[in-house]
Amino acid sequence: MNRKTLVKNIFQKSSYLCIGLDPELTKLPPHLLKEKDPVFEFNKQIIDATHDVCVAYKPNTAFYECDGISGWQSLESTKAYIPSDLFTIADAKRGDIGNTSKMYAKAFFDTLQFDALTIAPYMGSDSVQPFLSYEDKWAIVLGLTSNEGSSDFQKLSLGGSMLYEEVLLKVSHWGTPDNIMFVVGATQAEDFAHIRTLIPNHFLLVPGIGAQGGDLSAVSKHGLIKDAGLLVNSSRGIIYASKGTDFAKEARKEALKINEVMKLHLDKLDK
Amino acid sequence: MNRKTLVKNIFQKSSYLCIGLDPELTKLPPHLLKEKDPVFEFNKQIIDATHDVCVAYKPNTAFYECDGISGWQSLESTKAYIPSDLFTIADAKRGDIGNTSKMYAKAFFDTLQFDALTIAPYMGSDSVQPFLSYEDKWAIVLGLTSNEGSSDFQKLSLGGSMLYEEVLLKVSHWGTPDNIMFVVGATQAEDFAHIRTLIPNHFLLVPGIGAQGGDLSAVSKHGLIKDAGLLVNSSRGIIYASKGTDFAKEARKEALKINEVMKLHLDKLDK
Repeated sequence: MNRKTLVKNIFQKSSYLCIGLDPELTKLPPHLLKEKDPVFEFNKQIIDATHDVCVAYKPNTAFYECDGISGWQSLESTKAYIPSDLFTIADAKRGDIGNTSKMYAKAFFDTLQFDALTIAPYMGSDSVQPFLSYEDKWAIVLGLTSNEGSSDFQKLSLGGSMLYEEVLLKVSHWGTPDNIMFVVGATQAEDFAHIRTLIPNHFLLVPGIGAQGGDLSAVSKHGLIKDAGLLVNSSRGIIYASKGTDFAKEARKEALKINEVMKLHLDKLDK
Repeated sequence: MNRKTLVKNIFQKSSYLCIGLDPELTKLPPHLLKEKDPVFEFNKQIIDATHDVCVAYKPNTAFYECDGISGWQSLESTKAYIPSDLFTIADAKRGDIGNTSKMYAKAFFDTLQFDALTIAPYMGSDSVQPFLSYEDKWAIVLGLTSNEGSSDFQKLSLGGSMLYEEVLLKVSHWGTPDNIMFVVGATQAEDFAHIRTLIPNHFLLVPGIGAQGGDLSAVSKHGLIKDAGLLVNSSRGIIYASKGTDFAKEARKEALKINEVMKLHLDKLDK
């Protein structure tokens, strides 16, 4: 999906919500466990209930790989079930030497046909480049993450700047705002205004609202740009809104609550 | 596998060779393509021909994921086929927030039962910790990699030190030399002596000899410690030694050539 279509979807739906599809068997509504593929059945019902109130889905591969082959099957079924007007992100945090990254690009862009893949930057340019040669596909590179350990290396001082700033600036020159996005955690809300001075035009994928405690309004206020430029993700806060047979309905309600806030911020934009 | 057993195997076999199982369909001997699972059949014959002349196998997950479910099936079959006295490394370069890394640990240590997993350090401590709570399992964290892009971030100056040095020092304190190893590329041979002053006791996993051009003797001279402390990997140089029906036999020959050099270096050690 190209940027123009993604932006059109955001303004049509008044939402820049991405829903994280990270199902854990032990947290699924018990009545689903009798299904042949409980994980896919869970995702299917979440997608049915929310696809008109979000713009993107982001399965994290860890939650599928932990079940081996059957998990990979659930991931393929889930990806295939997502309607084609939704932006799809494989949250896989891959990255390897050039000839290996090429194989990951094949895995996620050709075989599974995701629109985007999250990528760890530590190995440098040739670990990112193979993902940039696909038309209308995206490399979403880790910038400043939402977790406690993010300060261990990302905020180390390089003299005049911090490592994550150098990552944003350097990586942004390897591609364009039409094929690179960055991950910036919502728990880092105080840094968004500054980050927008470094990368004013790139889309940011923002995890960390909900279970991780990030502030949607602060992120929106400082992160939104003219054509939105934000995808804010919620996983656990939406998909585990209820453990009952009403789980999908409750998930939709949580999504709508987030969209109320998003609409207010989008309406304020000077288009 | 614990360190004691790994070290015992190294000295018994006079080898610290790790073979990278990174099969690409287009590079396999053509006669294997008629098999039901050509990738597994290829790996099986390589393992049959080399398991007594190496101490570890390292499948890189990218080369399996690119084929989707059938690729994951080949990976599981391959792992299950490797004899239990060989050290097994899933070269997956994972790393995510704590609750997600826990799922990756489950995927590779419980479900697939690898001894070790390679991990990207960018997300910090909570992305590594979940891998350290398993007995006799290993986190192999990227330090200084073998690829061209390694200098983009890993060699950035933090004032008195470089990023990769800070990674080695900081990560080494999150666990012990009994559950953490580091990846250091063979193409960085000039840095090995210095790296040994920073982490004198940790095992290093060293990719980059063979196709990538690293120097085995230089790596061995500066990297070996009293109980070896090295696993040197070769992938393409061994597994693609021939494209004929003799491919496994030729792979063994390449492994034996490497072992000649390794034996010389091991014999020089002051045990």
